[in-house]
Amino acid sequence: MTDRDDKPAAKLWGGRFSEPTDAFVEAFTASIGFDQRLYDEDITGSIAHARMLARVGVITEDEAKKIVRGLEDIRGDIERGDLAWSVELEDVHMNIEARLIDRIGDVGKKLHTGRSRNDQVATDIRLFMRRAVDAIIEEANRLRRGLVDLAEAEAETVMPGFTHLQVAQPVSFGHHLLAWHDMLERDVERLIDTRKRINIMPLGSAALAGTSYPLDRDWVANELGFDGISENSLDAVSDRDFQIEFLSAASILMMHLSRMSEELVLWTSAQFNFIELPDRFCTGSSIMPQKKNPDVPELVRGKTGRVYGSLFSLLTLMKSQPLAYNKDNQEDKEPVFDAVDTLMGSLRAFADMIPAIEPNRERMREAARQGFSTATDLADYLVRRGVAFRDAHEIVGKAVRHATEQGCDLADLPLVELQAISGHIEKDVFDVLTVDGSMAARDLPGGTAPKRVRARAVAARAALDASKIV
Amino acid sequence: MTDRDDKPAAKLWGGRFSEPTDAFVEAFTASIGFDQRLYDEDITGSIAHARMLARVGVITEDEAKKIVRGLEDIRGDIERGDLAWSVELEDVHMNIEARLIDRIGDVGKKLHTGRSRNDQVATDIRLFMRRAVDAIIEEANRLRRGLVDLAEAEAETVMPGFTHLQVAQPVSFGHHLLAWHDMLERDVERLIDTRKRINIMPLGSAALAGTSYPLDRDWVANELGFDGISENSLDAVSDRDFQIEFLSAASILMMHLSRMSEELVLWTSAQFNFIELPDRFCTGSSIMPQKKNPDVPELVRGKTGRVYGSLFSLLTLMKSQPLAYNKDNQEDKEPVFDAVDTLMGSLRAFADMIPAIEPNRERMREAARQGFSTATDLADYLVRRGVAFRDAHEIVGKAVRHATEQGCDLADLPLVELQAISGHIEKDVFDVLTVDGSMAARDLPGGTAPKRVRARAVAARAALDASKIV
Amino acid sequence: MTDRDDKPAAKLWGGRFSEPTDAFVEAFTASIGFDQRLYDEDITGSIAHARMLARVGVITEDEAKKIVRGLEDIRGDIERGDLAWSVELEDVHMNIEARLIDRIGDVGKKLHTGRSRNDQVATDIRLFMRRAVDAIIEEANRLRRGLVDLAEAEAETVMPGFTHLQVAQPVSFGHHLLAWHDMLERDVERLIDTRKRINIMPLGSAALAGTSYPLDRDWVANELGFDGISENSLDAVSDRDFQIEFLSAASILMMHLSRMSEELVLWTSAQFNFIELPDRFCTGSSIMPQKKNPDVPELVRGKTGRVYGSLFSLLTLMKSQPLAYNKDNQEDKEPVFDAVDTLMGSLRAFADMIPAIEPNRERMREAARQGFSTATDLADYLVRRGVAFRDAHEIVGKAVRHATEQGCDLADLPLVELQAISGHIEKDVFDVLTVDGSMAARDLPGGTAPKRVRARAVAARAALDASKIV
Amino acid sequence: MTDRDDKPAAKLWGGRFSEPTDAFVEAFTASIGFDQRLYDEDITGSIAHARMLARVGVITEDEAKKIVRGLEDIRGDIERGDLAWSVELEDVHMNIEARLIDRIGDVGKKLHTGRSRNDQVATDIRLFMRRAVDAIIEEANRLRRGLVDLAEAEAETVMPGFTHLQVAQPVSFGHHLLAWHDMLERDVERLIDTRKRINIMPLGSAALAGTSYPLDRDWVANELGFDGISENSLDAVSDRDFQIEFLSAASILMMHLSRMSEELVLWTSAQFNFIELPDRFCTGSSIMPQKKNPDVPELVRGKTGRVYGSLFSLLTLMKSQPLAYNKDNQEDKEPVFDAVDTLMGSLRAFADMIPAIEPNRERMREAARQGFSTATDLADYLVRRGVAFRDAHEIVGKAVRHATEQGCDLADLPLVELQAISGHIEKDVFDVLTVDGSMAARDLPGGTAPKRVRARAVAARAALDASKIV
Repeated sequence: MTDRDDKPAAKLWGGRFSEPTDAFVEAFTASIGFDQRLYDEDITGSIAHARMLARVGVITEDEAKKIVRGLEDIRGDIERGDLAWSVELEDVHMNIEARLIDRIGDVGKKLHTGRSRNDQVATDIRLFMRRAVDAIIEEANRLRRGLVDLAEAEAETVMPGFTHLQVAQPVSFGHHLLAWHDMLERDVERLIDTRKRINIMPLGSAALAGTSYPLDRDWVANELGFDGISENSLDAVSDRDFQIEFLSAASILMMHLSRMSEELVLWTSAQFNFIELPDRFCTGSSIMPQKKNPDVPELVRGKTGRVYGSLFSLLTLMKSQPLAYNKDNQEDKEPVFDAVDTLMGSLRAFADMIPAIEPNRERMREAARQGFSTATDLADYLVRRGVAFRDAHEIVGKAVRHATEQGCDLADLPLVELQAISGHIEKDVFDVLTVDGSMAARDLPGGTAPKRVRARAVAARAALDASKIV
Repeated sequence: MTDRDDKPAAKLWGGRFSEPTDAFVEAFTASIGFDQRLYDEDITGSIAHARMLARVGVITEDEAKKIVRGLEDIRGDIERGDLAWSVELEDVHMNIEARLIDRIGDVGKKLHTGRSRNDQVATDIRLFMRRAVDAIIEEANRLRRGLVDLAEAEAETVMPGFTHLQVAQPVSFGHHLLAWHDMLERDVERLIDTRKRINIMPLGSAALAGTSYPLDRDWVANELGFDGISENSLDAVSDRDFQIEFLSAASILMMHLSRMSEELVLWTSAQFNFIELPDRFCTGSSIMPQKKNPDVPELVRGKTGRVYGSLFSLLTLMKSQPLAYNKDNQEDKEPVFDAVDTLMGSLRAFADMIPAIEPNRERMREAARQGFSTATDLADYLVRRGVAFRDAHEIVGKAVRHATEQGCDLADLPLVELQAISGHIEKDVFDVLTVDGSMAARDLPGGTAPKRVRARAVAARAALDASKIV
Repeated sequence: MTDRDDKPAAKLWGGRFSEPTDAFVEAFTASIGFDQRLYDEDITGSIAHARMLARVGVITEDEAKKIVRGLEDIRGDIERGDLAWSVELEDVHMNIEARLIDRIGDVGKKLHTGRSRNDQVATDIRLFMRRAVDAIIEEANRLRRGLVDLAEAEAETVMPGFTHLQVAQPVSFGHHLLAWHDMLERDVERLIDTRKRINIMPLGSAALAGTSYPLDRDWVANELGFDGISENSLDAVSDRDFQIEFLSAASILMMHLSRMSEELVLWTSAQFNFIELPDRFCTGSSIMPQKKNPDVPELVRGKTGRVYGSLFSLLTLMKSQPLAYNKDNQEDKEPVFDAVDTLMGSLRAFADMIPAIEPNRERMREAARQGFSTATDLADYLVRRGVAFRDAHEIVGKAVRHATEQGCDLADLPLVELQAISGHIEKDVFDVLTVDGSMAARDLPGGTAPKRVRARAVAARAALDASKIV
Repeated sequence: MTDRDDKPAAKLWGGRFSEPTDAFVEAFTASIGFDQRLYDEDITGSIAHARMLARVGVITEDEAKKIVRGLEDIRGDIERGDLAWSVELEDVHMNIEARLIDRIGDVGKKLHTGRSRNDQVATDIRLFMRRAVDAIIEEANRLRRGLVDLAEAEAETVMPGFTHLQVAQPVSFGHHLLAWHDMLERDVERLIDTRKRINIMPLGSAALAGTSYPLDRDWVANELGFDGISENSLDAVSDRDFQIEFLSAASILMMHLSRMSEELVLWTSAQFNFIELPDRFCTGSSIMPQKKNPDVPELVRGKTGRVYGSLFSLLTLMKSQPLAYNKDNQEDKEPVFDAVDTLMGSLRAFADMIPAIEPNRERMREAARQGFSTATDLADYLVRRGVAFRDAHEIVGKAVRHATEQGCDLADLPLVELQAISGHIEKDVFDVLTVDGSMAARDLPGGTAPKRVRARAVAARAALDASKIV
């Protein structure tokens, strides 16, 4: 009944305060411009609170019913656009409470018993974020599924694997797509872990110290689907960890999308030309018909900074803040809202786009064949035939020089020429010298052999199917 | 006529593209939701461009007049709320161009000759930021003036100077306020330096390479008040330094406000109780009438993270971006808009609030007298009388012990007792032992002696008066 | 056998490369200056790799024994300071490998079979971080235990609970300390979650594609105590999520320490004077004997930025990086090392300092009594007696005004005067009007009632005792 | 004589303090590990201070001479490695002062008269940064010169200009290099602006309030080459703006290097193959002889995050810090040192590398010819011949379709075929249709026409020659 709660009474302080809040300060300090987004959670939380107040006898069942009905009506009003948010009423909580009192009279004033805006807003934002995290996981899983499907279909498609953006070894295009999948899988795991710490109920902490009303916090938590209740009222009203942790998980997710985007942009350039993106994710030009700008990956890559920035905003916000509630914390919501929207939009765009990628398989294969990408395989082949490591390398060096002189790849050299370089080489060398042979040989868990890729795709799909969240 | 410019023609590409942009992608990639804020700059820039096109003979004078009149009418439309922004038209440039063609017919299509949206948007944002920086400087200067006035009035008011939040030495309250002033003075200097790099005109760089039309770039630059033109078209369309530099100056400014806020919050706490803040910058409580929460300083302190976050967003955005224009850069505006609004609001609130601060002078003085804050002065006194440094310290130690035993401050000890501790002490010791004496003794440039404080206030005010920007 | 692995052979490329790396470039690109810190993990990983190579028949048992013995000897050399790290050998891996070949001859060259520096370094850093996280958790738990013990001892100690740094309601000092504990509890949970994602073995991914040797990855993982193996070789060598996630958890932890530090600094100021910090965590002054600067909390607060900075370094590093390995990633280690050291030092300092805090109980109580901090309790009392909410507030307002006139607190008013204000007030009102009564009344889960505080301390200690990690 | 200054006396506080600093806390709070780097500036500042003390009569000329000689000797000791830094003596100031007293006896104790470590360290770091900024500017200018020279030589070399990493229009390779130059030119301007705010002398501010000694601050400032003195003692000891501003300029500079690096990595990939980097900036592979990893650009790109992180460290550090000095600020140096080293190393590597770039001119030209990159030029040509804008576009569309059917570029079509498409086309169309014609046509200030590129190179070189700093 203190602090943020004092403010509903604000317009009554006239007696003590010598001057009213002026209009600019009122607008500058109001949060209704953005926290109205929490209206649904605010009403849901209030309904559970009212019911509990009746259960423990603080208000009557009849009062609770009136309050609940009033709140449900207000939810309808808001959804129909029939509630004009007032800056003078400062925030979503007071706007709704004022409307409730308008609608049902003095009984509406009982709703706030044993509660403070400090624990109320903390409850609202946790409910909001729980829902947001679930939606993000669902969209991330949709994207993962798209990657798994495409990876399975493209398990045999060979492309150059790069390190330092230099062609290194042939890999399966499906394998590359599954690398993207595995990044996202970790993102989902992180979000699930974060959700555990989001889904704790602060309600009952009141302004900072708890309340003297005999609230049944566990009942409310159960009613609202929380996994548990906060154990310390001071901590509960000042904790914003879950928002920072979410923004951190969100930043890593966006970092992953930025890496995918970077590769999509590279692959659609004329120089790489590995894939075609579906037209609706691009823009073109009427007079440069060859041009197809990969707008969506570029924009998503650009949005990475936005989420990083939000993370840093909240870390700065909380640095050195003394307990318990300070007005600074009003700044905690917009970065979260913005990150939720950014993630939802970016994931949706990617989940729509990925299944429609068209690989230029011939072009990829040709690129993989360049640059003696299977030289390593020849060395390994020789080592397996008992040639000492260093000798093997020398032989490979000679073979590469010879092929360079012939203007061809290692796999294009006739057997007899290879055997002239080393007597250990036999016909089966071509099993490893071709890009397909090279890929197939990397047949260990996590390797790029197509059969491993297919098996991994199957396992990943099964894990998605088994996932409880989606 | 490429790239971003291709898009006006986008709805014509049907022939090449097999599917239209779907509605979600269209909304996801559109910028009209935020770049409409640049309408005024966009129109101003277009008018200058049209006039120049006529000057150099690319269009006729009559065409230019029609275009200019059309654009002025559209400006009126927008200001009256008579233009419904279209997401389908993607951004502010195409919305305005489409409306122009609607209004004046085919001649409207000539406006874009020799120009690209790449150099157009860069021009718009620079015009916007120039105006924003000027407004921020003006508001910062208003705040500085408030600090100078209060500092001059409170030059004699003594307060404890803190290090490590421990009372160290007495300082003038006016001196402390001038420390704040000097922070802001540097902020203004930085903004003026940034403005030099903002106020360079990229128009004429077209998509990335310049154009084959004989544009008179210098004429346009002069018309639009730019200090000069960019020297390299590739750089001009890809440069976002000026936005980052602005956000950096903005971050330091907010950091300064956060430090002032921290001190205001401390000083209004019951434990310090050094000042009263005007009521309208606070909130109170109907049932805890002693409570007056310093909402505005807390909120401003909280907003610091927001601006830091924006700085980091743009640094991330630009990291590793290849030249010239990429869609990523659409993300460059919102952080700047948000920072401009945050600075303007925070500075306005502070500029309104500072002059109304009421110091509790007695309370401050009392706090300054605690903790032997003039012990240093006694040592300096002795050194000036020829006592060796280390001996002086020993004497001071004895005096402090004696005063502690008497339960009083050094200045409260009778002269005879001080002289019993050291024969070097004479009556004039009280000139330095009192908090006023201690302050007055720090009479060197930058020192806290009240006469230095007043002189500095006068000089600072003169500098503000002479400032050309305000 | 590619990429980073190519480099051991670097000094052999003379034939192809026309000029040697010059000394500056060599030093600029070398990592041995900092990655030598991984020597122990590098050797441990190599030993497991060698044993496995023998198990699967790639090398002989005898060769494996020689390698293992050689590596163990080198570990001893390093620990005795008998290995001079060479910048020319670039990194810890090549330094150790070169020494191994020196010691045991050509058989040492077989160690690297089926492995690349790309998967090797990823394995090393994961082993290092697993150990670091365990050590940090242990130190955090030691600090938690100190807080729990002090909280239990101080459950009855009353202090003002603040919001907006204004006195709001009385709280138990123990309750405040448990708020700190609960922050740290979440930190430990986050570190445990992060550890799951750290403890995955990338070895066997080779340069980027896996290897054609029949490695037994599960055996090595088990040998090294990993929870599992990576599922995709491209992802395994390019993934740095676990480092970012660790730095994020570390940033939140430091943020918590910064909040505690802020409060410790406030509480040790002359104005608050709530606690004494042990001398050895402070610095004093020979001539200002009252001065005791809270150096450790201030320094820890300052170190927060350092860890935040490291988090943003790595987020920036990974943004937009194409797969798989790029030289950029050499920059991934120093921020992690620095954060580990910062956390270990800061936690150790706090764990040592907290148990030695001496509360000034009388001073705290006096501060809690100021400002009608129990006004809320009077209102609640009246509501419980059937007074309507708004009427209750009016009565409290009157009582506060009356007490203000008398120059006393609400609890100091005689019963008869209170009864003159409202007939609903009876003798038991003093149970709630005193600061002790106010505290005791907040008797719900998470509330500040001393018995709740003690119960929570007992539960928290039990949880620490049951913790498997420590 | 307070605060940080109290600490020299620390080992004397035994009387008041009940326990010594323990060894861990001593090491944790010491700064000598990194601030020893300031020894030269510390000595230089002390010498000027000592001379001034003699000038104003606080010490004798003879004392000053002894002190100066002692300090010069210590500088020699340090440079010869003959001073063992002591953690117990905490920082560089006390280490040097203690050594001075050892060397010259009690007169050494007079050096610190009228000074505090608070203003001393602020002076040292400003002297250090002034020198660092000058060195960075010099190295940046060396890099600029390399770019200008190469740009001039390659003014006629045609390459594709990209937007969205799609080929857009032909540009001069020299023009692209000058875009890089112009970024760096702004970096140098920013550093020069920052230097103004670095080069202000805080000495004379003492601990926080100034001093009662009659110091001649202007004389010292002049002696040390400062542009002026700080105007407020509180601000002077707490100001860290100049460090943040430097880190901001450094971050933008690194961002620029990251963009150049990104392009260098792209250009050296097999897919682009636009340039060769000198071998010594790369690493190769003994068995994949085609591989040449662009290590230096990748590493520099990676180091970007490091400098961004340092910027955010200091922004965080200063957020909400109350005046004047707090121990937090000990954390201000390492990020600056690290950024200085990173910039110096990165700039040196680039300045060495750029002049040795070998462009694959034929390959670039071929890439520029792809994708109808001169289609825009054809449209402009027609507009200049009086064809309406939209009609021009239609004609170009037809021409592109025709060329696509012929499998050639626009410039390869015979005149007669072009004329069949539009009667406005004449022989001079080939002046604009070729990539050289297209480039040459962009003949306006900032455009890519080779003659403009050469002129700009000449002007940029002249500006470098005229630059006072280098």
